[in-house]
Order: sequence, then structure tokens, then C-alpha cells
Amino acid sequence: MAAADTLPIALDAMGGDNAPRDIVRGALLGAARLGVDVVLVGRSADVERELAAAVADDPAGGGAARARISVVDAAEVIGMDEHPAAAVRAKKGASVVVACELVASGRARAAVSAGNSGAVLAAALFHVKRLRGVARPAIGTSLPRSDGGSTFLVDVGANADCRPEWLAQFGVMGSVYARAMMGVESPRVGLLSNGEEPGKGSALVQAASPLLAAAPIRFVGNVEGKDLFHDVCDVAVTDGFTGNVALKTAEGIGEFLFAAISAEARKSLQGKVGGALLKPKLRPIRDRADYRSTGGALLLGVAGEVVIAHGRSDAEAIVSALRVAHTAAQRDIHSAIGREIAAVSGGSADDDVAVVAAADAGQHAHEAETRS
Amino acid sequence: MAAADTLPIALDAMGGDNAPRDIVRGALLGAARLGVDVVLVGRSADVERELAAAVADDPAGGGAARARISVVDAAEVIGMDEHPAAAVRAKKGASVVVACELVASGRARAAVSAGNSGAVLAAALFHVKRLRGVARPAIGTSLPRSDGGSTFLVDVGANADCRPEWLAQFGVMGSVYARAMMGVESPRVGLLSNGEEPGKGSALVQAASPLLAAAPIRFVGNVEGKDLFHDVCDVAVTDGFTGNVALKTAEGIGEFLFAAISAEARKSLQGKVGGALLKPKLRPIRDRADYRSTGGALLLGVAGEVVIAHGRSDAEAIVSALRVAHTAAQRDIHSAIGREIAAVSGGSADDDVAVVAAADAGQHAHEAETRS
Repeated sequence: MAAADTLPIALDAMGGDNAPRDIVRGALLGAARLGVDVVLVGRSADVERELAAAVADDPAGGGAARARISVVDAAEVIGMDEHPAAAVRAKKGASVVVACELVASGRARAAVSAGNSGAVLAAALFHVKRLRGVARPAIGTSLPRSDGGSTFLVDVGANADCRPEWLAQFGVMGSVYARAMMGVESPRVGLLSNGEEPGKGSALVQAASPLLAAAPIRFVGNVEGKDLFHDVCDVAVTDGFTGNVALKTAEGIGEFLFAAISAEARKSLQGKVGGALLKPKLRPIRDRADYRSTGGALLLGVAGEVVIAHGRSDAEAIVSALRVAHTAAQRDIHSAIGREIAAVSGGSADDDVAVVAAADAGQHAHEAETRS
Repeated sequence: MAAADTLPIALDAMGGDNAPRDIVRGALLGAARLGVDVVLVGRSADVERELAAAVADDPAGGGAARARISVVDAAEVIGMDEHPAAAVRAKKGASVVVACELVASGRARAAVSAGNSGAVLAAALFHVKRLRGVARPAIGTSLPRSDGGSTFLVDVGANADCRPEWLAQFGVMGSVYARAMMGVESPRVGLLSNGEEPGKGSALVQAASPLLAAAPIRFVGNVEGKDLFHDVCDVAVTDGFTGNVALKTAEGIGEFLFAAISAEARKSLQGKVGGALLKPKLRPIRDRADYRSTGGALLLGVAGEVVIAHGRSDAEAIVSALRVAHTAAQRDIHSAIGREIAAVSGGSADDDVAVVAAADAGQHAHEAETRS
């Protein structure tokens, strides 16, 4: 993949709550820090104006990084509230569509978007295409673990209703990810359930369990929600509904606890002093639980590297998403998934329209959780 | 219910990781603090010995509280690892069975057990019986909210696979609970989903949504995992699989964050001083997230008050569980649920055997989360 290494990463300049400003700034920061070329895809007049402003704000790093940035015009934008599949079909010139086309046509080695995540999924399915043998692409995300490691949770939102065979494929794709991206030699794959014992679980979990046991992975059986944060497994497999609820629940209680701690630390002098002393110590913990530092979720199961960044991404989050895309492209994750998935049937094939229609229901268009 | 007010609460002395010692001590503490009579149900020799030891340890309060405690012998015990329904059928003399029989026969006004929660559910179904019209009893639990209130999440483990009609009934039962136990006049009921917009969600969620909208409750539509910890709804309805995963995920990340904060606060002098100053301020936050202070989960939908306490319950957790049982009995929650559930069909009736068989799969026998 020597030629591919020189290709740029296509970045949807118009997607996300803070687009195009923070996306453009993230591109410059990413180019400087990661040494990658970035193609910003969007309304070129807007993008060029933001680029000029960003470079002016940061003459030190911005000027040098500017040489690594190119712009490809895309006249249309898909909004956060639009119906993902319909919008992707209707707006052929949308920035996220053009970014995925750059990957499909071999002009970019990865695509990154912080936009409507259902639309990113649809654009990837329609243009980058599913890998042969993959029943359903899935979205994975990393959760922090008490031992300093991570648990990769898949699926966190692409498929609200799953068949057992799909969960087995999620296990295979997650294992490839854990080996290639997390450096875990023999990843332990757990099946998220409401009890550790075999026989516990929904009908889906009970049907998926023997398929995961038969798959060419290191299946360790059922795991529970609390196990996600300890050294129990490296990959946790679940349907996109449960995964999304679990991820957002974790995010919700994390934010609640940090907010409560901050509030207590403001209430009294003792709290203020203690809080001021402890605050720098808490930052690394908070950062580990923060999507900004974890960046973007790789879409697993499509024929190219596509990263879904958090809708709230700021420039730093974009750098993290570019890092995921850069690493995934270097390690050619999608090809590794393609080789391994052939061993595990995903059941009968659906066409892309059915896949996207189902994904529409599963996918939270506004801000599907997209940490990786 | 004047006569019922004088009845004792039946407490399974043999159930839980710390039984009978902590259960017996919890009974004494609860009797003293709450002014309730307690029947300890278990192997009478063991229970009497623990009672004597506990009174000797605490001559101040123990001696006076002792007068409120009676003992009913139950020769058998159901272990944490036993198959719930089979064990309840086979062991007619098990402590949890006898405790439920005391409620059924009008000799106790509530039953509390920290034992095998599947067995508590089975014993309640077989002996206390389902309320007429209730398709499936459910377990609810309270989660702390950033505004100081609570979100009551139901079901957290009794039913791994649900029909849409059952979720509508969970909404009705949860509303009764929120009014009677949480003092919320017009409880907002949300449907836990992977996106707020109507149309998002699994097939189950999409089918349940119109049924909840048609039910005689204040349905506010879909809510997400992160909404559970903010002032978005008072009752969140979900299937027992998703609810259990969400609850254990919240518990897991909460423990992870507090452990990480403690570890950081031990690493340096600055951290130690800051931690020492902040620690008393953090205790109330930690307590709010701790099952010991929230005590027990009321089983919704059976013809009496049955409280499932956490398997790890210590004496303080037992006091909290007794408080839930006491309040539920005073407010006659099960009768209120019986009146309101008649308005909402739960679909075709199943027999108790089918209900228990399904609950076996859903219920985590070891330590189903049982905060309320």
C-alpha cells in the first residue's frame, strides 16, 4: 500500500455542530501533528475563508500545515435533522457523499465526517460499499477500563435489531480491530448480556452465543455492563440498540458525576481548595472518558476506511478522528476484515437499501456516539 | 389498612452474600429506626444465635429493638447459584418461599429478600401471585439525577424479552410507583431508545411507543441513556435485558470513576491533600449512586409488597430495603397498581410457569441489580 500511503484523508468540512470552523482548524492541526495530507470537502468558498482565518490565527503552525491541505468543492450539505438515506440519495453533491466517493475512486485513503452519522453510514454503504460477506456494517467504540486498557464495544448504533449471525460477525470484525488498532494479540470477545452464566440473556443473546463460540475468535462468553470497565474482555459484542443505550448511559453518568463533583467543590472553601488541588489529577481520568480524545469510530465492514466523528467534535476531536483514520489506513483494517469475515456467515444477504433502511431506525441521526 | 399496619415485615434471614449475620443486624437496626416489626425467616437456630450476638454487640439499641423481632423457622435455603424456579418448586420450606407465604396468608404486610433474585421473583409469582391483568411483573430501580431527583427505570431484569404491551404496562406500574413512592404528582414516562426522535428504536420500541402514548399516563416519548441522569422523565420504560445492561453499565462506570479518583488522590502529596479535603464532599454523591442507601427494588405487578434487596446487602442496605417495604405497605402500592393496570391490556395471558421460565433467562440469579 505504498501508493495509498501518499493519498490524503478526505474530511467532510461541513459535518458537525461546529462545522466548518472547527473542522478546518482540526485539519490544520492534524496535518501538522500527524504529518498527513487532508482534503477538505465542502463549499469551497466557505472552506477557503475558514482556512485563511485559521492560518492567520496560527501563523506558527498553520502556515506550514496549509501546504498539506487541499480543497474539493461539494455544493450540498446534509443537515443533522435530515433523513439519512433519503438525503444521501437526493444530494449527490453533498460533502459526505463526495468524501466517500474520493475513497471509492482511490483518490483518498480514508474518509472522516462529524456530520449526520446516519448519512455517513448511508454514504459509506452506497459509495464505499459493504465488504463481500458482511451482512451488516457496525460501529464500534472504545470504553476506558480500570486497568488502563480499553473495551471495544460493537455495535453502538448502526443496527437496532440484529440477527444472531450478525453478532458473530461483529465479534470477528471487533477482533480484527482490537488486534490491528489496539495491539491486543489474542483479543477476548465477550457477549454483552444481563448475566454472566450461559443460558442468561435475551433470545438474541442465547442464539448468538453458540455462533460466537464457533467463530474463529477467542470467545469468553457472556459479560455484563459493569464488566465493560474492567479487564474482562477486549471486545464486547451487542446489538446496536443495547450498545447505544449502554454507551449513552455511561456517558450520562460520567457527566453527571463530574458535574456533581465540580458543584460540591464550589460549595465551600474546603471544597474549593480540595478541588483546586485535585483538579489537575482528575483531568487524565476525565480525558479518558471524553470523546474528544478518543476521536472517531471506524465503520467496520465497508470496503474502505470511514471514520464517524462525534457530532460535537471540536478541532481537537477532529485531530483524534484523523489519527484513527490515518492508523486504520496504514494498517489496512478493511482488507483484514475482508479476509477474516469470509470464515463467518452473516446469514442471507440483504441489499444495501434494506441495510440502510434498518440502519435509519437504529441510527441516531443527531449525535450517534462515535468514539473509537 | 389499619390492621395491616400492625403486621410485621417478613425478612428472608438466609438470603444474600452476608446472610444471616448482616440481615439479622439490619433487622434490628431497621426495627429501631423505622419502628417496624420484623419476622426473620430462616433456620431458627442460626437466626437466634445471630440475634443474640447482635444484641450483645449493641446493648444500647439492640436490646430495645429485639422486642420488635420474631423468628419463623424455615429449614431450607435457596443458594445464589440454584435454578430459581426449580429451586422454589423443590424447596417448599425455603426461607424466601416461607417469607412470601407469610404475605400471601396475611401474616406479614411485605416480604424482603437479598437472596437469589430469580428465586424471589419465582416465589412471589407462585405464592403472592400476579395481580389480575398484569402480563409480567417487573423490577424497577431508581437512578440519581443531576437535579437531585430520581429516574425510576423499569424493567431492570425480570423480563429479558418483552412484548410491546408489557412495556405499556411497565409505564403504568412505574407511574403508580413514582406517584406513591417518589411523590411525583404527574410522572413523565419516557421510553428508553437509541434516539430521541419518533421512529428511532428497535422494532420493540417502535411498537411500544403508540401503546404508551395511548396508555393513561403522561408519556413523553423516547429518551436516551444519558437522559436517565437529568430531569427529562420520572419513569423510564425498557425491557429487562436493556434495563439490566444500562443499570450495570452505570454502576460499572461509577465504580470505575470513583476508584480512579481515589487512585489519583493517593499518587502525590498534592493529590492526597486535595483528596482529603474533597472526600467528605464527595461522599453524598457517592452515596446517591450506591445501592446501600437506595436499598431494595419493589417487585411491581404481584398481589403484595415484595422487595428484592441487593445480593451484596450489608446491614445498612437491609435497613433501606425495609424502609422501601414499609413505605410500599403503608401506601398499599400493589392495590394501586391493581386498580390502574386494568385500563391497559398486557396482551394474552400466560400462565405463571411460562412467566417464570422467561424470567429465569432474564434474571441474573447471582446479583440482579435491585436498587430502588
